[in-house]
Amino acid sequence: MLPFDIVEYQSRLKKTKQRMEEKGIEVLLISDPANMNYLTGYDAWSFYVHQMLVIIIDQPQPIWIGRYMDANGARAKTWIYEENVIAYPDYYVNSSTHHPMEFIAEILKEIGQGNRRIGVEMDNYYFSAKAFVRLQQNLPNAEFLDADLLVNWVRIEKSDQEIEYMKRAAKIAEKAMFNGAESIRPGVRECDTAAQIYYHMVSGTEEYGGDYPAIVPFLPTGENTAIPHLTWSERQFEAGETVTIELAGCYKRYHVPLARTVAIGNPPEKVISLTSYVVEAVNEVLLSIKPGITCGEVDDIWKQCMKKHGIIKESRLGYSVGLNYPPDWGEHTASLRSGDATILKPNMTFHMIPALWFDHYGIELSETIRITEKGCETLTNYPRELIRKDPFMPQPQDGIIS
Amino acid sequence: MLPFDIVEYQSRLKKTKQRMEEKGIEVLLISDPANMNYLTGYDAWSFYVHQMLVIIIDQPQPIWIGRYMDANGARAKTWIYEENVIAYPDYYVNSSTHHPMEFIAEILKEIGQGNRRIGVEMDNYYFSAKAFVRLQQNLPNAEFLDADLLVNWVRIEKSDQEIEYMKRAAKIAEKAMFNGAESIRPGVRECDTAAQIYYHMVSGTEEYGGDYPAIVPFLPTGENTAIPHLTWSERQFEAGETVTIELAGCYKRYHVPLARTVAIGNPPEKVISLTSYVVEAVNEVLLSIKPGITCGEVDDIWKQCMKKHGIIKESRLGYSVGLNYPPDWGEHTASLRSGDATILKPNMTFHMIPALWFDHYGIELSETIRITEKGCETLTNYPRELIRKDPFMPQPQDGIIS
Repeated sequence: MLPFDIVEYQSRLKKTKQRMEEKGIEVLLISDPANMNYLTGYDAWSFYVHQMLVIIIDQPQPIWIGRYMDANGARAKTWIYEENVIAYPDYYVNSSTHHPMEFIAEILKEIGQGNRRIGVEMDNYYFSAKAFVRLQQNLPNAEFLDADLLVNWVRIEKSDQEIEYMKRAAKIAEKAMFNGAESIRPGVRECDTAAQIYYHMVSGTEEYGGDYPAIVPFLPTGENTAIPHLTWSERQFEAGETVTIELAGCYKRYHVPLARTVAIGNPPEKVISLTSYVVEAVNEVLLSIKPGITCGEVDDIWKQCMKKHGIIKESRLGYSVGLNYPPDWGEHTASLRSGDATILKPNMTFHMIPALWFDHYGIELSETIRITEKGCETLTNYPRELIRKDPFMPQPQDGIIS
Repeated sequence: MLPFDIVEYQSRLKKTKQRMEEKGIEVLLISDPANMNYLTGYDAWSFYVHQMLVIIIDQPQPIWIGRYMDANGARAKTWIYEENVIAYPDYYVNSSTHHPMEFIAEILKEIGQGNRRIGVEMDNYYFSAKAFVRLQQNLPNAEFLDADLLVNWVRIEKSDQEIEYMKRAAKIAEKAMFNGAESIRPGVRECDTAAQIYYHMVSGTEEYGGDYPAIVPFLPTGENTAIPHLTWSERQFEAGETVTIELAGCYKRYHVPLARTVAIGNPPEKVISLTSYVVEAVNEVLLSIKPGITCGEVDDIWKQCMKKHGIIKESRLGYSVGLNYPPDWGEHTASLRSGDATILKPNMTFHMIPALWFDHYGIELSETIRITEKGCETLTNYPRELIRKDPFMPQPQDGIIS
């Protein structure tokens, strides 16, 4: 029932404990739902309330502590022993008088962990400032250490099974991109194209059901292509506009993002030339990537390619990607960014997104790559070009195009 | 272009400043994307990196501070003056050496706000433990106060325009529920039903385009109906199973959640009787709700109704709902929970979710309500009953049913 073999979970736990040992952490409190999933298989949208996975350096079993109504899920859908699933009552939820971290601190004291060196994920979305303050107040004998990204760094090298899931996610990404782009024509509303994309992302392929991506599809249009993180609106596409689509296929929480730019009718010359520079640079970067070079060097190669055309990209070229939950599919570890000293190794996976945003327009054309033994491969197989749509060609049907 | 009149934004800001004054807060730092949207109209999926809206008690204009690539959006899509949009460089993102809060602290000092009484949203997803620590370190002369939920409490009473948007969201919720339930039959995969629901949530109606909900649709099936926050899988529905669907229609970020339970073929007697008790209790609660009573009293009425049948619900009966972003559509203010002293007022809106989860099954049947001048109304109009599906009836088509 679990997506991975118990041996794989045990190996992940072992690597996590090695890092704990290196950092002198005796008890690791995990708030990040991706890290929780990675170590136990737990997969539910319960992270909107406080919950915690507790890894104790000298105990074999993790402990899950969460809301009463979610405990059934932790018992049924993980490899943790039932007695290691501990639930707090519902009056701790959104309460001005009770905070779940008080409960969690109490449990830690009860099981003799209240005076240890405790690692917490300091910059995680699901570990709020108040969560930290309440833990500190209720565990006065503990020493707190920053364990932010500790498990994320274990996640950076994927297993073959993880790569297999990402390849399935890649198929879903291709299908969603194809159908999303197909649906774009003058008079169609942005929300209808977003709906097509969502349908295919979630339905997946005949073999593999899709999962929800950690980020919604973006499809800024016209002047809004200058603004990368806008979501869709009710407005209708118009001839002459460009649309950037950024989406991810997701399979069992593993993401493969993919971005392309769609032109409805003839795009401006600058969009055509910019795309050709980007495609040329992407091709060159893909040929240069191999195990042993650093993430920073990848960005430097890209920068050199674009410099020929006088173009500078302010933002990083990409980031490590894989297992995740909202609000981000990036893993927050290595970035393809000048100066990042992370050395590429086989089965690392990155979303390389050489997007460029100017004042009134932008383009995106991305690839998700896997580092191989000798180089790299793209996980999706999608034409690396501007997608051209004839604005006068009527589309065959209005429903779902599969 | 903004979803609300500038007068409405000004009134929201005024109410926010009144609360700041009551609490002795001179500078309010807003991390919650819903609060940011509420005060400025800013609507983008950029909250996965640190960003902040700064409200200064004695200055008319808020200041937006965020990532460079997102600043165009803050300039184009809010009523804030362009010069009040301040961007930090991309090397602050997911960096081990630079934290955005250092940048934000620097700006606050530069504009003479470094030594004031600063309110922060202590328990918000987007204000991490590290964010708070970095702010404190870099603003040693500031005094920090907990301003968690300060703006959320302003949001609790909706304007007529907000109610209008929720009514549109309600139409979308009805459509998504109808098409989701229609698609369920033996042999259909859970992910295909989730895809139908998503298609209709996002496409919306002909008049109103849908937006992404802050929580994904839930559709636990069979024994999993005991586990409320599971998402869909690839498995196929089987005759004799029940499925609980919980979803929300969303329009311009305003949510109207709706839950129903679907039975494929003849459900167990316990599901039928449980549903009838819940429907009876919901009807009675709806008749009792009126301005002037407290949220706690609403839960007490529900509890009395269910006590007749020997049923106790562990969790709260509901919560305030409206404008939001992932990971929660609840507003984290008032709960329909015994002891909650919040007094009901017209145009408050709640998701009343009398869901019951037992060890091996559960049911959900919810209503989103608006408090009216004399009582309350449900925002959706959906049959308040168990949805019965004939498992042997072939469905008319496999595509999108509109």
